[in-house]
Amino acid sequence: MARPQAPRIPISRWRGRAWEHLDDAVAAEEPLQLLLNGEPLSIVMRTPGHDIELALGLLSAERVIGSLVEVTGIRISAESGEREDRVPVADDLIESNQVDIHVREGTGRRPERSFLASSACGVCGKTSIENVIPADRPALSSRLQVSAELLYSLPGRLREQQSLFARTGGLHAAGLFTGEGELLEIREDIGRHNATDKVVGAFLLDDRLPLSDRILMVSGRTGFEIVQKAYAAGIPIVASVSAPSSLAVELAQTAGVTLVGFLRERRFNIYANPDRISRP
Amino acid sequence: MARPQAPRIPISRWRGRAWEHLDDAVAAEEPLQLLLNGEPLSIVMRTPGHDIELALGLLSAERVIGSLVEVTGIRISAESGEREDRVPVADDLIESNQVDIHVREGTGRRPERSFLASSACGVCGKTSIENVIPADRPALSSRLQVSAELLYSLPGRLREQQSLFARTGGLHAAGLFTGEGELLEIREDIGRHNATDKVVGAFLLDDRLPLSDRILMVSGRTGFEIVQKAYAAGIPIVASVSAPSSLAVELAQTAGVTLVGFLRERRFNIYANPDRISRP
Repeated sequence: MARPQAPRIPISRWRGRAWEHLDDAVAAEEPLQLLLNGEPLSIVMRTPGHDIELALGLLSAERVIGSLVEVTGIRISAESGEREDRVPVADDLIESNQVDIHVREGTGRRPERSFLASSACGVCGKTSIENVIPADRPALSSRLQVSAELLYSLPGRLREQQSLFARTGGLHAAGLFTGEGELLEIREDIGRHNATDKVVGAFLLDDRLPLSDRILMVSGRTGFEIVQKAYAAGIPIVASVSAPSSLAVELAQTAGVTLVGFLRERRFNIYANPDRISRP
Repeated sequence: MARPQAPRIPISRWRGRAWEHLDDAVAAEEPLQLLLNGEPLSIVMRTPGHDIELALGLLSAERVIGSLVEVTGIRISAESGEREDRVPVADDLIESNQVDIHVREGTGRRPERSFLASSACGVCGKTSIENVIPADRPALSSRLQVSAELLYSLPGRLREQQSLFARTGGLHAAGLFTGEGELLEIREDIGRHNATDKVVGAFLLDDRLPLSDRILMVSGRTGFEIVQKAYAAGIPIVASVSAPSSLAVELAQTAGVTLVGFLRERRFNIYANPDRISRP
């Protein structure tokens, strides 16, 4: 594999009584631009590696291709390190984080629905971050300060209010808390992104944006888009009981968002902008 | 709320020694068509409810709108049961599962990237299922039979091979098993959908489709799209340690896919096509 699937980054780990500063592995996340016969078809956020399989599996699931016989060639960057002897792969014609699937004439029906399209030529973590934070837009500068003890209390308060999760075991939650740990609003949805959009949308409807003294707590993992949504809404602290992705960490660092993960019992990790968490 | 967020459906529950047949609540999932000034912008799969918040939160996160002042009106179906006194809401002009946000002239920049567009007018669970299973395409008819004991073994075998999860705590996995419980391939990714596409793509590259005697086991929840991918690849049994959505259950029933959820220790639920799981 040319690129690490679990890059190591410096974090601050709180273990109930003291800080440790160490390098920890996080799940790699980068955008992949998928092309069909050289035309942009879709962008997916994925963990790099097995990109040819991802492209073929996705095109097959969407019935864009019926079988491998229809595929006449694949272009992928040399640095991806992927080689296939089952289909012709050209490696010198394409930028990183792209896969271009070429199919026989008369095949390769473009899907009608549920597909992302982009005219960007070339995507990477850096361009994703620049799309979210253009040069003329500053990082968040909230002076919110919260204690480790306050963070401990958030997962339990969120869980108490997850009424749909309690009945189905199958919903994500996003909650907005004050700096004193009061849960202001919670929304539940099958999608983590939707739950976050709904809770931010509730404050938008009340004209209570930006949320520069609030904390966003999500029940699931924090990928790039969760941090993007927090930054867009002006929320300076994002916390989760689970893991962040590499690109979420990079975006949080650039965006001035404090990113807390693995918040369980009296432990947590800080992945970006630790200064807002005061030492007990 | 006009529609249930946790509808009850009949399931078969195995508790280690005997079957129970009961109604259980599952998380509701339906598509939502988002429109901007009457033009289709995006389709998201979501749990119905708080749809206006979802639309506004998503448009705000993507910087399509800057504040509520730019919103001149919202159209949503009467049956959604949503009322807002902060923006004008018209309720008699739109089909269910749609939200149409109207913005002032000169505002409402359409996003360049990362957005779904659809020309469909009107979406619902039924049309989603018809898109996946047209009238000329049959349900799966695999005669694969597996025992409850075999199912028990799958989560442990998947977890043993989750090397990236072990290092990061932050990746989903999808594995393809034989009917005897042998793990043939596993892929890990920050996205559940990607992990499934990659593992199916690996078999497509080896020209080993359809997978009519295989079992797909995923580490996360099973939404509509996971079942869609299994059906497209011809996989007759989908198992998960976690919960399915309502639309995943409906699609599995129609598609002839056996759907197993909450597979933990010696317990599991069957949500669709239980005949492939033999009684111990």
